[in-house]
Amino acid sequence: MKLTTAGESHGKGLFAIYEGLPSNLKIDIDEINHYLNLRQSGYGRGGRQKIESDTVEILSGVRNTYTLGSPVAICVKNSDYKNWQQFMAPEGCDTTQKTLTKVRPGHADLTGLIKYDQTDARNILERASARETAVRVAAGTIARQYLRALGIEISGYVKSVCGVIDPTVYAFESLNSAKSEPLFMLDKDKQQKAMALIDQLKQNGDTAGGIIEIRVKGLKSGFGSCMQYDKKLDARLAFALMSVQAIKGVEVGVGMQAGNLKGSQVHDEIYFNNGKFVRKSNNAGGIEGGMSNGEEIILSASMKPIPTLMKGLNTVDYISKQPCKAASERSDVAAICAAEIVLESVTAIALAEVVAERLGGDNMAEVIARYCNLA
Amino acid sequence: MKLTTAGESHGKGLFAIYEGLPSNLKIDIDEINHYLNLRQSGYGRGGRQKIESDTVEILSGVRNTYTLGSPVAICVKNSDYKNWQQFMAPEGCDTTQKTLTKVRPGHADLTGLIKYDQTDARNILERASARETAVRVAAGTIARQYLRALGIEISGYVKSVCGVIDPTVYAFESLNSAKSEPLFMLDKDKQQKAMALIDQLKQNGDTAGGIIEIRVKGLKSGFGSCMQYDKKLDARLAFALMSVQAIKGVEVGVGMQAGNLKGSQVHDEIYFNNGKFVRKSNNAGGIEGGMSNGEEIILSASMKPIPTLMKGLNTVDYISKQPCKAASERSDVAAICAAEIVLESVTAIALAEVVAERLGGDNMAEVIARYCNLA
Amino acid sequence: MKLTTAGESHGKGLFAIYEGLPSNLKIDIDEINHYLNLRQSGYGRGGRQKIESDTVEILSGVRNTYTLGSPVAICVKNSDYKNWQQFMAPEGCDTTQKTLTKVRPGHADLTGLIKYDQTDARNILERASARETAVRVAAGTIARQYLRALGIEISGYVKSVCGVIDPTVYAFESLNSAKSEPLFMLDKDKQQKAMALIDQLKQNGDTAGGIIEIRVKGLKSGFGSCMQYDKKLDARLAFALMSVQAIKGVEVGVGMQAGNLKGSQVHDEIYFNNGKFVRKSNNAGGIEGGMSNGEEIILSASMKPIPTLMKGLNTVDYISKQPCKAASERSDVAAICAAEIVLESVTAIALAEVVAERLGGDNMAEVIARYCNLA
Amino acid sequence: MKLTTAGESHGKGLFAIYEGLPSNLKIDIDEINHYLNLRQSGYGRGGRQKIESDTVEILSGVRNTYTLGSPVAICVKNSDYKNWQQFMAPEGCDTTQKTLTKVRPGHADLTGLIKYDQTDARNILERASARETAVRVAAGTIARQYLRALGIEISGYVKSVCGVIDPTVYAFESLNSAKSEPLFMLDKDKQQKAMALIDQLKQNGDTAGGIIEIRVKGLKSGFGSCMQYDKKLDARLAFALMSVQAIKGVEVGVGMQAGNLKGSQVHDEIYFNNGKFVRKSNNAGGIEGGMSNGEEIILSASMKPIPTLMKGLNTVDYISKQPCKAASERSDVAAICAAEIVLESVTAIALAEVVAERLGGDNMAEVIARYCNLA
Repeated sequence: MKLTTAGESHGKGLFAIYEGLPSNLKIDIDEINHYLNLRQSGYGRGGRQKIESDTVEILSGVRNTYTLGSPVAICVKNSDYKNWQQFMAPEGCDTTQKTLTKVRPGHADLTGLIKYDQTDARNILERASARETAVRVAAGTIARQYLRALGIEISGYVKSVCGVIDPTVYAFESLNSAKSEPLFMLDKDKQQKAMALIDQLKQNGDTAGGIIEIRVKGLKSGFGSCMQYDKKLDARLAFALMSVQAIKGVEVGVGMQAGNLKGSQVHDEIYFNNGKFVRKSNNAGGIEGGMSNGEEIILSASMKPIPTLMKGLNTVDYISKQPCKAASERSDVAAICAAEIVLESVTAIALAEVVAERLGGDNMAEVIARYCNLA
Repeated sequence: MKLTTAGESHGKGLFAIYEGLPSNLKIDIDEINHYLNLRQSGYGRGGRQKIESDTVEILSGVRNTYTLGSPVAICVKNSDYKNWQQFMAPEGCDTTQKTLTKVRPGHADLTGLIKYDQTDARNILERASARETAVRVAAGTIARQYLRALGIEISGYVKSVCGVIDPTVYAFESLNSAKSEPLFMLDKDKQQKAMALIDQLKQNGDTAGGIIEIRVKGLKSGFGSCMQYDKKLDARLAFALMSVQAIKGVEVGVGMQAGNLKGSQVHDEIYFNNGKFVRKSNNAGGIEGGMSNGEEIILSASMKPIPTLMKGLNTVDYISKQPCKAASERSDVAAICAAEIVLESVTAIALAEVVAERLGGDNMAEVIARYCNLA
Repeated sequence: MKLTTAGESHGKGLFAIYEGLPSNLKIDIDEINHYLNLRQSGYGRGGRQKIESDTVEILSGVRNTYTLGSPVAICVKNSDYKNWQQFMAPEGCDTTQKTLTKVRPGHADLTGLIKYDQTDARNILERASARETAVRVAAGTIARQYLRALGIEISGYVKSVCGVIDPTVYAFESLNSAKSEPLFMLDKDKQQKAMALIDQLKQNGDTAGGIIEIRVKGLKSGFGSCMQYDKKLDARLAFALMSVQAIKGVEVGVGMQAGNLKGSQVHDEIYFNNGKFVRKSNNAGGIEGGMSNGEEIILSASMKPIPTLMKGLNTVDYISKQPCKAASERSDVAAICAAEIVLESVTAIALAEVVAERLGGDNMAEVIARYCNLA
Repeated sequence: MKLTTAGESHGKGLFAIYEGLPSNLKIDIDEINHYLNLRQSGYGRGGRQKIESDTVEILSGVRNTYTLGSPVAICVKNSDYKNWQQFMAPEGCDTTQKTLTKVRPGHADLTGLIKYDQTDARNILERASARETAVRVAAGTIARQYLRALGIEISGYVKSVCGVIDPTVYAFESLNSAKSEPLFMLDKDKQQKAMALIDQLKQNGDTAGGIIEIRVKGLKSGFGSCMQYDKKLDARLAFALMSVQAIKGVEVGVGMQAGNLKGSQVHDEIYFNNGKFVRKSNNAGGIEGGMSNGEEIILSASMKPIPTLMKGLNTVDYISKQPCKAASERSDVAAICAAEIVLESVTAIALAEVVAERLGGDNMAEVIARYCNLA
C-alpha cells in the first residue's frame, strides 16, 4: 500500500493515487467529505476556509462504491481555481502577477527559491502549502475504512493550544465528542480560555500552535518489527506525523518524559487475566520493541504556530535584498483542528500500510480472515 | 545509499551491508573503532561492556582503505560467541538452555513470542537487543566520513539523565568535550548529581533514561523536500531517531514546546548580511518546509529507562501463565551514553542518504564538486 | 523519479503522478498529444481507436509550461465515459450489465476473477487492459523531454509482423520516418506484405503480433551499475519492456542469438581514435557490465498476437463452467504500432529514472551542468 | 523479502543479507553447498573452479537450523584470499600489482574506470565479476527451501550451447537428471556435439555461450498483478534473469517467437475438467496478464560467450591509449552450467519475494496456512 500525492494550493486541485488496496473494500464517500469538512473547521481559521468547501471525487479504482484492487485515484478540486487559472495554468499563464519575494520565516520560501532555481516564491509555496494535506485526509479516510473492516479505529483531540494545556487522561470512547467542539478540546473551561487567547492573538496579529493526541484502538499485537530497524512501528508512525507541515515534535506514549522517569515508573507490568495477557498502565503507548503490543497506540505531536503573522515578521526581499515585512499569504491565527484531522489521517495511512504488509491479501474477504486468524 | 543490518546479540556478530557509497572515499578504521568504544562507555553500564571491546572488520567494498563503489560489508564480532556457540549456532545447537519465558515488560519478548510462533523469548530478544546498534555505529562512522568530506559534522551530548536537566544552550564547538565526560554531560555539577542518582538507582535495583541533543553543522540549505511528503528531511530524521531502541520522543528545534509558544516567539526572522541570508535565532532547528535551511540542525530525543530492572518487574511466565518477576538479561542502570553515540550515528546515516540522493555521483571527486557548486 | 499510474479502460480516464522531475523543465504538450495520437494509429486497429482521440491534461506540477519540481499529475480522459458512466461510476452504477464471464485465453480474466474474488471479469479487464499504456505514453513523452534536454533521443520501428521480418540494420537517423508508415516498418515491400497478411487474418478472424526494435542515442557511458545486481541498466530496461502488456521476449543487442555465437563473433573490440575510445560493432547493444558504454542502446521486444480473436477461442464460462467461445471485447487484428510507441515510452521512463539517480539535481540548470561534466 | 549482496572476487568473500524471511523455516545447509558445487561444475570451466570449493557459512538469522525471522546473513568465503590479501586487503595493501589496464571488450572494465574515477580496472572487475553470483546461489537455495515448503519447485537445463540446439520439450520431472550431465543437457547426442565444439573452441582460444530454460512447478495462480505495471510477474522475472552477468535475452513461454505467430497458434484455450480450469498448451509460459495462471512457469535466457578469450581480443591500454590484446583474467571456455544454476537461483529469489508480498506472514505455519487457503 502506497500513497502518492500531487497538486498545488491554487492549481486545479489536489490529487492522489492510492496503490495496493485490496478489492471489495466498500468506500463511503460521505465519510471522506465529512473528514474534509472537519479539516476546514475549527476556531481561529481565516477567510479561505469559508470560500472553499472541499469534496472528494474518486477518479479510478472504485466501481459502484467498491474497490477493484486497482490503484485508486482521487481528487479534491480547488474551487477557487477559476480565479487563479490566469496565474497558475499549466498550459500557459501570466507569471508576473501574484509573485512573492518577501520570503516568510518558517516557510519553505527562501530555501525553495534557491533549491529550485526560481525568482518567485509562488513557485515554491504552492506545493509547500499545508493545503496538500486535504488529499491526505481524503486518502486517510479510505485507510480508516480499510482498518475499520478489521476492527481498528483511530481518534484524537487537541490537548493544548498555545500553552493552555488539558492534562486529563481520557478514555478512547470519549474522544469522538471532541470533533463537535470549536477547538477539538475536551475540557470546556480550557477550551474557553484557549479561544479567548486566540482572539487576543488575532488582535495582536500573532498566531498559535498546539499539541495533539492521536489514539488507535483495536490493533492486535505484532504489527511492526523488532527484527529490522526500518520496519519498526514507532519509527514509521513518527515519520508519518513528522511529515505533516508544522509538526516539530513527536511522542509515543509517555514520550519526552520517558527520559525523566525511573524504570519502575515507566514500564507496563504484565498480568494474565481471563486467558489474556494484560497491563494496568500504558506508558509505552502500545508499542514495545518496535511492535504494537495489543494496547492502545498513543501518539502526541506538537504543531508550531502558523508562520504567517498578520503583523509581519522581519525578513528580506529575495530580489532586492532589502529588509521588509514578510508577505501574508493567509490569515489563520490557529489551524490546530485541521492538524488534528491530518494527524489522524496520516496515522491511518501509515498503519494501513503496516497492516497490509503483514496480512498481504488481494481482496477484503482474504484480508479479514487473515486478521481474525492472528492471535 | 542504503544500510541493511543483521546479527544477533550472542550470535557470531553484527553484520551490515552499506550500499551506494561512491568510490574513493577514504575509510578511517580507527575512527570507527573509536566510536564503537564510545558506544560501550558511560557511567551506569553493567558487566557485559567490560568483557567485550568491539572492533569493526571491513569485509568488502574497500581496498587499501578506499571505497570501490561496491557494497561495503562490515562486521562487529561478538567476542563472547565462543561461550554461546553451543546455544546459538546456526548449524545446530542446544536450544533447551538459556531459555527466557518470564517475559520482560518494555521489551519485545511477549509480542515477539506470539508473532514469530516461538516458545522461548531467546529467539526474540537476540535480535531485538540494542546490541544491534553496534553495527549502526560502525556504519554511521562511515556516513560521518562521507559527510565530513563535504564539510558536514555531527555532534551531540546528554542534556538530562532521569530528570537531572542541563538547560544551557551550547555552541557546536563545545559539544565535543562531552565525549570525555562519564555521562557525556557538559555541566559538571549536573553530571555529578546525575551520577549520584545512578548510584542510588543501582542500589534500588532501578534504572534511568535521559534526553540527548544531536547537532549537525555545515549542511547547506535545500536538503530534503517541500514537494513530496515522504522526502521531508524532518520526517526522515524523526524516523531515524525513533528507529533506535528505547527512544520514545523526537524533537526538531524547539520541539514539543512549539505548540506552547506564540508565532512571534518561534519563527526565525531573516536578515541579509555580508552577501548572505542569516538568522538571529534557530528555533526551527535548521529545518523549514521539510528542508535544511542552512542553519545548524538541532534534534532531541528522549530515551526511556532500561526496561530490565535488577529488582524485577511484575510479569507472567509465558508458558505456565503464572505471575513472576521478569527475567534479568543485563545489568545496566543507564545506557544514555551509548544512546547518544547511536543517535549521532543514525543521524549521519539518514543524512548521508539524503545528501546522496540530491548529489548523485559515483566517485568522491564528483560528489565533492557537486556539493561545492550548490548555493 | 517515479511514475505511478491509475485508471480503468472505460472509467473516467487514465491518471498518473510523475514524481521527482526537476524544476524548470519545459513541457511540450503538443508533443505529448502527438505521441498519444501515434499510439492510436497503425494498420490493423479496430473500431475503438476511431471514436477516441486521446489528449493529455496536465493537472499539477507544471505552471506556464514549466515544471515546478513538484509531482506532475496528468490525465488522459476516456471520452467514451459518458456512455459507460451508468455501468462504471465509482459513486454508484449498474453492475448487472456489461458483464464478462466467458473468460478470454491470453488475458487476465480467469486468474483475476479468482485473485480479486469477483464474479464478473469486467472488474478485472478494465484495469488489465492495454489502454492503461496511454498514460504511460503521456508520461514517457515528458521523460523524453527531460532526456532530450541532455541530448538523449529515443526512437524505434517495427522489425517484423507475424513472421514478415525485415532483417536490415538501420542508422538511427533513418528510424524516424517509420512513424509515417502504416505499420511503422522501414522496408516498404515487407510492409506491403505484412498489411496483406493482416487483411487476410482479419478475414479469418485471427490476429497478429510482431517484433519491435527500440534505440537510444546520445546516452553517455556509465549509466546503470556493475556493483549492485538490482541497479543494472539491462535488468531495469528488461523490466520496463516486459511490463508492457503482451510482451513475451526482450533482447539487448544481439539478444537471444548471443547464445549461439562464438566469443570472437560477439564482443565489440575497442579502439582509440581522435581522443576517444570507439567500437566498430555494437553487438552488446550499448550495455556492458550492466552499464551504458556510450554506444547506442539497442533493445528488441516481441509482442504476442492480440488475444481477442473475432473467430473466438475455446474457453469456459466462469459461472456456469460450460464450454463456450471467448468474449470479444475489442476488434483489433494487430496493435504493433501502439506497442512500438509504448515501448519507446517505457524505455524513456526507465532511462530518465536511471539518469536522475546518477545526476541528482533539483532544477534543470543543475541537471544539465552535471550531465555535461560527465566524461 | 529483499536480498542485498556484497563482496569482491578476490576479497575476503561474498556476503549477503536476506531480509524478510519468516521464522521457523528449516535451513538445509547441505543443499546450499550442493548448489554451490553445481555452480562450479560443468564442462568448459578453467582453472579457478578447481582450487576453490565453495561452501556457505550462515552468520546470523538462523539458530539450530531454523530461521528466527531476523535478517539472515550469509557468507561464501574466497579460499584463495590468503594469496590475494596483500593486493586486496581493505585495511591496507599493495595496489601497484595485479593491475589491469588492457580493458576487456564485453566487460565492465572501460566504462567502470571512467565512472568510478580509477586507473586500474582491478577496482572495477573485482565486483563486476560473475563470482558475485555464488552468494546469489546460496541465497537462492534458501528461497528454494521457502518455496518448497509451499509445494513450489524450480528446475532447468541447458537447451543449447553455441548453436548446438536441443529443441525437445521435456516434462518437468525429467529436468532434474540434467544436473548429472557435463553440460546440463538432456539430449546426450547434442551434448556430445557441444562438448566437442567446446574442445575445438578451447584450441582456438575462443569461447561459447548458450540458452537455458528455467521452469517452475506448483505455483498457484494469481501471483503478480494485472493492476500495477511494476508488480507484473513477468517483468519481475525478466528483471531477475537479466540481472545475471552475460544474459542478453529473456523469454517467457513462446518468447521471441510470439511475434511471428498467429493468435490462434499462441493463446492457450481454457477447459474445465474434474472441477478445475485446465489448458492443453502452455505457450504463455504460465503467465497471463502479469500473473501466474497456475500452469508451469517457463522462462528462457540467452547467455553471451565468455568475454575473456585466450586468443585475446583487440583493445586499447587505458593508460597509454596504445592498441593491444585484452587482458585474460580467467580461462573458461564456457560457463553455461554455472549460469543455469544462477538463473534457477535468481528465479527462486524473485519468486519468493512475490510470494511473500501476497502472503505476508511472520512465521512458516502462518505462511503455509495462507498459501493452502488460496484457490
